[in-house]
Amino acid sequence: MENDYCLQYREGPANISRMSSNRVEAFSDGVLAIIITIMVLELKVPHEASLEALANLVPVFSSYVLSFLYVGIYWNNHHHLFHSTKQVSAGILWANLHLLFWLSLFPFFTAWMGENHLAPVPTAAYGVVLLMAAVAYYILQLAIIAHQGPKSLLATALGSDWKGKLSPLGYISGILLAFVSPWISGALYAFMAAIWLIPDRRISRVLERDEK
Amino acid sequence: MENDYCLQYREGPANISRMSSNRVEAFSDGVLAIIITIMVLELKVPHEASLEALANLVPVFSSYVLSFLYVGIYWNNHHHLFHSTKQVSAGILWANLHLLFWLSLFPFFTAWMGENHLAPVPTAAYGVVLLMAAVAYYILQLAIIAHQGPKSLLATALGSDWKGKLSPLGYISGILLAFVSPWISGALYAFMAAIWLIPDRRISRVLERDEK
Amino acid sequence: MENDYCLQYREGPANISRMSSNRVEAFSDGVLAIIITIMVLELKVPHEASLEALANLVPVFSSYVLSFLYVGIYWNNHHHLFHSTKQVSAGILWANLHLLFWLSLFPFFTAWMGENHLAPVPTAAYGVVLLMAAVAYYILQLAIIAHQGPKSLLATALGSDWKGKLSPLGYISGILLAFVSPWISGALYAFMAAIWLIPDRRISRVLERDEK
Amino acid sequence: MENDYCLQYREGPANISRMSSNRVEAFSDGVLAIIITIMVLELKVPHEASLEALANLVPVFSSYVLSFLYVGIYWNNHHHLFHSTKQVSAGILWANLHLLFWLSLFPFFTAWMGENHLAPVPTAAYGVVLLMAAVAYYILQLAIIAHQGPKSLLATALGSDWKGKLSPLGYISGILLAFVSPWISGALYAFMAAIWLIPDRRISRVLERDEK
Repeated sequence: MENDYCLQYREGPANISRMSSNRVEAFSDGVLAIIITIMVLELKVPHEASLEALANLVPVFSSYVLSFLYVGIYWNNHHHLFHSTKQVSAGILWANLHLLFWLSLFPFFTAWMGENHLAPVPTAAYGVVLLMAAVAYYILQLAIIAHQGPKSLLATALGSDWKGKLSPLGYISGILLAFVSPWISGALYAFMAAIWLIPDRRISRVLERDEK
Repeated sequence: MENDYCLQYREGPANISRMSSNRVEAFSDGVLAIIITIMVLELKVPHEASLEALANLVPVFSSYVLSFLYVGIYWNNHHHLFHSTKQVSAGILWANLHLLFWLSLFPFFTAWMGENHLAPVPTAAYGVVLLMAAVAYYILQLAIIAHQGPKSLLATALGSDWKGKLSPLGYISGILLAFVSPWISGALYAFMAAIWLIPDRRISRVLERDEK
Repeated sequence: MENDYCLQYREGPANISRMSSNRVEAFSDGVLAIIITIMVLELKVPHEASLEALANLVPVFSSYVLSFLYVGIYWNNHHHLFHSTKQVSAGILWANLHLLFWLSLFPFFTAWMGENHLAPVPTAAYGVVLLMAAVAYYILQLAIIAHQGPKSLLATALGSDWKGKLSPLGYISGILLAFVSPWISGALYAFMAAIWLIPDRRISRVLERDEK
Repeated sequence: MENDYCLQYREGPANISRMSSNRVEAFSDGVLAIIITIMVLELKVPHEASLEALANLVPVFSSYVLSFLYVGIYWNNHHHLFHSTKQVSAGILWANLHLLFWLSLFPFFTAWMGENHLAPVPTAAYGVVLLMAAVAYYILQLAIIAHQGPKSLLATALGSDWKGKLSPLGYISGILLAFVSPWISGALYAFMAAIWLIPDRRISRVLERDEK
C-alpha cells in the first residue's frame, strides 16, 4: 500500500474530483483545535480579585473541563475513524461537516449551562447537543462504511459498538433527568465522558486478530 | 505527473520564488476553519435559563446554520478548484486573499442579520457579502485559468457553470427583495445554498469523459 | 536537493535537535490565519438595523481592510523568506516569534484606531506597531542570513531592499504626522501597503539570473 | 530510520490503531497557535484615544507579553520533545491533552492578573496555572519515556533536567510570595521564563555526544 498523499499527485488529473482523507482530517483538526480553545473565551474574567470570585466560577470551570474532555474524545475517535479511510466521498464530507456543526455548538451550550449553575433547561439543552453530536458521529460512521462496503475493516471493527449504543441512552437519560435534578444529569454526562476516555481499541483489536 | 510538494524541494533553490498550491490551501483551510468556528462566538449566551431565551435565539441560530453551510460549501469548492492547480502565481494568491476577505465578513453580517431578526437592511447587507464572495470566487477562477491557459482542464470543466451564473442572480434578487420581505430573501439565500450543497461534479465529469 | 521534510525522518535521531523550517512555517501560518480572522471579532455588531449604523462603522471597516492587507502581505513575504530556508536555528525561531508578537497586536490597535475614528494617539500607536513589525521582520532576515552566511541566496537577493528601507521611513512619518493630521497618516499607511502588494520579486529575479 | 508519516500509509490497515506523532504535533500546534493569539482578545480596547488610556493597560500588556513568552517556550520545548517520538500511545495522547488544557487557561488567568494590576489572588492563581502546566509537561515526559523505555534517548537526554526541577520551585515561591508582594511574584515568573528562553539543548547535546 502506497502513501495516499503522494499517490494523489502522481496519478495526475484523473483524481481531481476525489479528495483525500488527509485534507478532511486537517480541516477537522483545525476546527476541533479552535473549538477546544475558544471555549475558554466564554470564561468571563471576573472584576474582583478575590478567591470568592474564582469560587463563583466553579460551575463554569466544571462545564469547561467536561466540554474539553468531550472535544478531546471526539478528536481522538475522529482520527481512529479516518485512519481506516483513504478517500472520501461527498457524503462523508458532508457527514463530517454535520458532526463539526454540532461540536461547534459546544462553546455556546457549555457557557449557558455553566453560567446558570446547571439550571434544568440549559443542562437538558447541553445533553441535546451531546446527543446530536453522537448521532452525527454515528451517521459519519455509516457514510464511511457505505463507501467502503459492509465487509470493510471498519464495519467489522464496529460490530460490537457497545459504547456507541450506550452513549445516546446516557444522554437521553441526562436530558430527562435535568428536569428532576440537573446535577444527576451533569454526573451522567461526566460518566459517559469517562467511559470514552479509554481510547477506542475496537478497531485495533480486530486488526490485530486479523494479522495473526 | 509528480508530487508537486516533493518537487518543490528536489528542484532546489531555483524554485524559491514559486509557491506551491499546498501552502495556499493550508492557509485558506486555516482561515476557513477559524471563520466557521468563531461565528459561534457571535451567539451571545442568554442570561435566563429558560426555553423562551433559547426561542428568542432562533433567528440568530438560523443565520448561523446558513453561514455554516456557506463556509462549508466554499471550503468544498475551494478544494476542488485548487486540486487542479499545482503552482500559484501572485495573481492567484491575491485573488485568494480577496475571497478570504469577503468570507471573513460572514461572522459580522451573520450576527447583524440574526440579532435584528432579519430586518431589511442587515438582510440586504448579508446578500451583498454573499454576492461579493461569489464575485471573488469567480475572479479566483479567472486568475487560475489565466495562469493555466484557456485549454486547461479547469476552463473546460467550468464551461457550463450554471450554478456560478445563477448564484449572483439569486443574491441580487435577495438584496432587492429584502426591502419588500426579508424572509423571502432569507429563503432565497437558503435555496442558493441548497443547490450548492451538491458538490461540484463538473470537473470530475469532464475528466472522466477525458479518460475514456 | 532532497525533500527536507523526508530527510528529517530518514536521518534519524541525529536530527532531533534541529527543527525543519516546515514546522515553523506551519505554526506561523496558523498564527497569521488566526490574526487575520479574529480581527473581525473587533467589529462590534451594531444594535440598530439601519444603513446609518453601518455608515458609522466605515472607519472601523477601513482599518480592518488595511490590517487585513498588512497581514496578507506579511504572510506572503514570510513564505518567500522561509522558502529559501531549510533548517532553523534557535535565533531564527525566536526572531520569528518576535515578529508574530507584533503582528498579534494588530487586532487590538486596528480596533483602537478604527473605533476612535483615526484620533491622533491611536493612529500614531498603530504606526508604532507597523514599525515594530517591520523591524522584527528585518531582524528575522538578519537571523536567517546569519545562519546561511553572507553569500547566501537570500543575502544576495535582498541586496537592493528599497521597500524594506522605505517602509520604516513611511511608518515614522505616519507616526509623527498623526499629531498634525491623522488622515494623512492613514493615507500613508495605506500607500505603504500598496507598494508591498506587488509580491517580492527580488528573490526570484536573482535566482532567474543565476539560472541563466 | 524511515519517514514515519510515509510508513503509516505503506504498512496499510495494520496500523489503523496507531497514531503517528505528526498528527498530535499538528493538533497541538493548532491549539498553541490559537492560545497565543486569542490572548490578545482579552486586551479590551479602551474607549478613550489618549496615551493615559494606553498607560493604564501596561499591566495587562505586561501579562500578555509574559504569557506570549510562556506559550512560545512551551511550543518550542513541545517540538523538541516530540521530535524524539515517532509513535504515540493513548497515554501520551491524553498526557498531551492534559498539558494543552492547562495552557488553554493562560488567556483567562493572564487577563485576570493583568486587569487587577497584579493583585495577590490573581497573581497567585496565575502561578498555579504555570505550576500545573509544568507538572503536565513533566507527566508528558514520563509518558513518552514509559513508551520508549528507560534507555531511550529522551530519558538519557533529560537526565540532568535542572530547568525542569527549578521551575516548579520558582512557581511555588511565586504563588506564596504573591500574598507578600505580587510584584516579586511577577518578577519571578518573568525570570523563570527568561531561563527557559534559551532553547533546550540537553537533547541535542546528548545526541551529538552519541554521534562521536
